Amino acid sequence: MTETVISSAKREVVLGFERRFVMIGERINPTGRKLLAEEMARGDYSRVVADALAQVEAGAQMLDVNAGIPLADEPKILAECVKLVQETVDVPLSIDSSIVAALEAGLSVYQGKALVNSVTGEEERLEAVLPLVKKYDAAVVAISNDETGISEDPDVRYAVAKKIVERAADFGIPKENIVVDPLVMPVGAINDAGIRLMYLLRRLREELKVNTTCGASNFSFGLPNRRGLNAAFLPMMIGAGMTSAIMNPLHAEDIQAVLGADVVMGHDPNCMSWIRKYREPTPEGAAGEGGARGGREGRRRRG
Amino acid sequence: MTETVISSAKREVVLGFERRFVMIGERINPTGRKLLAEEMARGDYSRVVADALAQVEAGAQMLDVNAGIPLADEPKILAECVKLVQETVDVPLSIDSSIVAALEAGLSVYQGKALVNSVTGEEERLEAVLPLVKKYDAAVVAISNDETGISEDPDVRYAVAKKIVERAADFGIPKENIVVDPLVMPVGAINDAGIRLMYLLRRLREELKVNTTCGASNFSFGLPNRRGLNAAFLPMMIGAGMTSAIMNPLHAEDIQAVLGADVVMGHDPNCMSWIRKYREPTPEGAAGEGGARGGREGRRRRG
Repeated sequence: MTETVISSAKREVVLGFERRFVMIGERINPTGRKLLAEEMARGDYSRVVADALAQVEAGAQMLDVNAGIPLADEPKILAECVKLVQETVDVPLSIDSSIVAALEAGLSVYQGKALVNSVTGEEERLEAVLPLVKKYDAAVVAISNDETGISEDPDVRYAVAKKIVERAADFGIPKENIVVDPLVMPVGAINDAGIRLMYLLRRLREELKVNTTCGASNFSFGLPNRRGLNAAFLPMMIGAGMTSAIMNPLHAEDIQAVLGADVVMGHDPNCMSWIRKYREPTPEGAAGEGGARGGREGRRRRG
Repeated sequence: MTETVISSAKREVVLGFERRFVMIGERINPTGRKLLAEEMARGDYSRVVADALAQVEAGAQMLDVNAGIPLADEPKILAECVKLVQETVDVPLSIDSSIVAALEAGLSVYQGKALVNSVTGEEERLEAVLPLVKKYDAAVVAISNDETGISEDPDVRYAVAKKIVERAADFGIPKENIVVDPLVMPVGAINDAGIRLMYLLRRLREELKVNTTCGASNFSFGLPNRRGLNAAFLPMMIGAGMTSAIMNPLHAEDIQAVLGADVVMGHDPNCMSWIRKYREPTPEGAAGEGGARGGREGRRRRG
């Protein structure tokens, strides 16, 4: 059983097949958020703080921090945000950048064992990012594409993930510290995106035995009722072996889908988290509709 | 690939691993519905007709018809309801009773190839029900328990299902006509109920290669926010290999979960059913929240 430990100064989160699913809040990211980008660029991090608090309050066990603003001093901003977020909340962080200097700046101020987001299978990236991951004893998100691009063939993506795990071992990084992102494609464009992903997740779990994460909301891109579709997608991926996701914990539907999947996986002992979250204040709540009927068992007892 | 064909005079429904999930409406069942039971007992079937119409309108591809009323003439009532429902809607039916004479009465008036609900692995039941299934060239729901009761061990349930398939073969009934019900237990009472069921569904699909059904709502029995939990449970079971369920299609959450799972499984070509159901009348609807951001891919293109 592969367990990936990520920590802050005060708290530890473990990704694993026998663990509760880990929700990594995606909100602290200026990509596509113009106002946030402008604020962050001029050193106003009030919204970063508010987003950190709101996501943890909503149930995120980790937060992703990204400071990718065109023409801005990303290493400086990312380091300042990492520091500030760690002063605000005590959950572990994913330090998210495509710029190696920014990853290093973030890591240098981080308290605990971070998740570096991310490295791909491209040789140049492997050689730039893996030494950092080793130096700071971090874990890293491994994205399953390389110089040849993103393959639609799940077996090719599996091979890329395997290559990253092997290259990481060359740098002294154990498999437990690799969290594979199998890449979620929009099902509106690729009709087999879901079923291929489930197949790949199963191989990653059963053969490569690694923990996994993904940008879950990509799946529903371009379709109506995205939250409804995400709420079916997330449990199915969890059932196939996915152990975390970078997602929006402010969406109640997503939280419900994940907590429900934890129940189905047997990872919510006595359903206590579910009951705590959804128990109704009124006395008639607990029985729910159809309670008296009891479905199949109720009908069979009669026979 | 095992395909189970069920039909009415005018319509055919196919259960299969490469097919859309089949929702069997559960509402026409007096168990726990006192008013309906009283009406049916005195020959007033107006609510049966209304339930049939509403469930098909909501998206049920099949309907279960049960007339189990204590002290009533179940064979007569079941036959009358089957006849009436077939005059009202053209979806195929599941004829549901624990009384063999009622199953026969229903089958004798049924137009098409029915699903008989159900037989267990008890020898006495097998010998009473299987000849009927053969005589009327029907399919049958095989419940995976026998004289020893309902085992909590999924391998024992698998063995019971296998035994029923083998006994059915003795009667000349092919495997395609057996739809196994692996038995959904309430997770509030048995914490491993979900994960064991997924394991069993995978064995039933990959080894015994049979279609499956279940009384889905049993899973959430006794817990708060039952619909929310069902909406996580159903997609996970579909991902594990379940091909139909006896469920309440009047619950919008359940329908959304099933249609979403069809999308994830790649069984909704070009997502047309999803789009048709959920497309919004307003122009801003289609893009949805977070559309411009595009998650991981959006962020990576920037790098």
